[in-house]
Amino acid sequence: MADSGSEASGTAEGSLAEEFAVPPQVEEVRGRMAEFAERHAGAGRRVVLITSGGTKVPLESRTVRFLDNFSSGRRGASSAEYFLDAGYAVIFLHRHRSLYPYTRLYAGINLLDALATEGGAEGGSARVLVDQTALPNITTVLQRYQAVKAAGLLLPVEFSTLSDYLHLLKAAAQALSSIGSKAMFYLAAAVSDFYIPASEMPEHKIQSSNGPLQISMKMVPKMLSPLVCDWAPGAFIISFKLETDAGILLARARRALDTYRHQAVVANVLDSRRGYVAVVTSGDTRELRLSEEEVQCGVEIEQRIVATLVAAHHTFMAQA
Amino acid sequence: MADSGSEASGTAEGSLAEEFAVPPQVEEVRGRMAEFAERHAGAGRRVVLITSGGTKVPLESRTVRFLDNFSSGRRGASSAEYFLDAGYAVIFLHRHRSLYPYTRLYAGINLLDALATEGGAEGGSARVLVDQTALPNITTVLQRYQAVKAAGLLLPVEFSTLSDYLHLLKAAAQALSSIGSKAMFYLAAAVSDFYIPASEMPEHKIQSSNGPLQISMKMVPKMLSPLVCDWAPGAFIISFKLETDAGILLARARRALDTYRHQAVVANVLDSRRGYVAVVTSGDTRELRLSEEEVQCGVEIEQRIVATLVAAHHTFMAQA
Repeated sequence: MADSGSEASGTAEGSLAEEFAVPPQVEEVRGRMAEFAERHAGAGRRVVLITSGGTKVPLESRTVRFLDNFSSGRRGASSAEYFLDAGYAVIFLHRHRSLYPYTRLYAGINLLDALATEGGAEGGSARVLVDQTALPNITTVLQRYQAVKAAGLLLPVEFSTLSDYLHLLKAAAQALSSIGSKAMFYLAAAVSDFYIPASEMPEHKIQSSNGPLQISMKMVPKMLSPLVCDWAPGAFIISFKLETDAGILLARARRALDTYRHQAVVANVLDSRRGYVAVVTSGDTRELRLSEEEVQCGVEIEQRIVATLVAAHHTFMAQA
Repeated sequence: MADSGSEASGTAEGSLAEEFAVPPQVEEVRGRMAEFAERHAGAGRRVVLITSGGTKVPLESRTVRFLDNFSSGRRGASSAEYFLDAGYAVIFLHRHRSLYPYTRLYAGINLLDALATEGGAEGGSARVLVDQTALPNITTVLQRYQAVKAAGLLLPVEFSTLSDYLHLLKAAAQALSSIGSKAMFYLAAAVSDFYIPASEMPEHKIQSSNGPLQISMKMVPKMLSPLVCDWAPGAFIISFKLETDAGILLARARRALDTYRHQAVVANVLDSRRGYVAVVTSGDTRELRLSEEEVQCGVEIEQRIVATLVAAHHTFMAQA
């Protein structure tokens, strides 16, 4: 659910470390991602980096207020499951507390409404059981989750702010560079296009007694350009474009592809995003659409998106 | 964790319906809150309305981007538990997906990491059990949650946007007006001080290709003034003040109290909010502070805040 590649250009690489604070864990995370990628590529697997969720953009350095982007992380989390089903190893770079693969299926449910105690009346310790009507398909989902975890196929990495995201994306690209065309970037996160440079940010909470608020935000440098050209030139790279106006969608997706020369744009409209997307590549626009019946039966559009991209990645690798 | 009453004034009542869209469910929710308050007050209980979590302020009418306030809802959710322990009935007006009483204790844990299947090997259906080391104190917490639920002592109401919040707060005040001094308002939500009027909001997603972003936000009318004077004049009303600068904290809390003439301000500083607050009333400033040992043992400052306010509410009712 996202807009990973917009049209404006910027001097991404030069300004990254100057304008955006480096998160302390970035070196350690880069090492874990590189080890993960090499291990799985060595075992013949492809590796996808999925970005998911919105980015926080602080308005104050001791942050009380921030700008955010609409995103529950649903598209990224469900896509991760379909990539795992397709045999990929997945690095899941997601917003803290956004939806998570498998667990997302129970996100709207209060855990305590789904539990019951058993026994414990005569001094023995009580057992706590799951009410399986409250958590549909829980045994199947739990077994799949446990199998993925035991096989080490899912590496979660968290971000909160735009700064965290930008540095971790660069680190991921560097970590995946050694596996070349076996790497896919599936940039579904809803990344802010705007930010306030640290040098222009007030330290303390903005006081409402000072009157109406004027916020002036700079444009975020576009990471897609250095990602495609410098950081991961051999990889299969997918950006996302979300619009609210269907009339401009395909033209903007095509323009992003022309600008960045990556492999595909997944284009979608806010109101219809669960039932329709267009996968735009240099030679083709493939529209994916769920029927009413499919939606009723719980079919997810991410299954179609992932199947389309897995096939395209296969072709890409054969040509690489 | 919040700032429910700031200093600026505004024509709250007049502009509310004009400038902020009325959420469709507001009448139905008002009815449920009124029934809840009357039932519990009739049974001799006091009723507290707790507001909790941050408010979303959309930047576009088909919203992709929004301004948000730092708040996990932790203070509101934990306070709800202590008010329930003190015998109050609780209306919990909280941000969608913010922390929830009792469930909050397990918020950082992936549900699927805490479950295991048992049986099911020979065609029987498997049972799903909770690993009690993964969910500390789960039997005690679950029993308390179930008892509160069975007694109907907790009424949850959700909001997402600033508009939802403002209308639901007004509805809550109207719903509680019939129980007079038995009602407490504990306004812990982190409410935005700024918003963009619907008439000035772009319909579609702001395009980054248009260059840097200038946002001009109006000040939100202060609801504390009509709440105290018009909507709930007999109630015991507590606002919160969060600052990042400790040097201005107590003066601002005192100023809010002088301006709105309600019963107390709970003042806190962002960095120390879990270990220190000041409860400021017209005659007194009481500082509550946890020791290192208390923090280590899991004592929560909300227990002290609630105990202080429950006692003050008792005195207030006796004088009413």
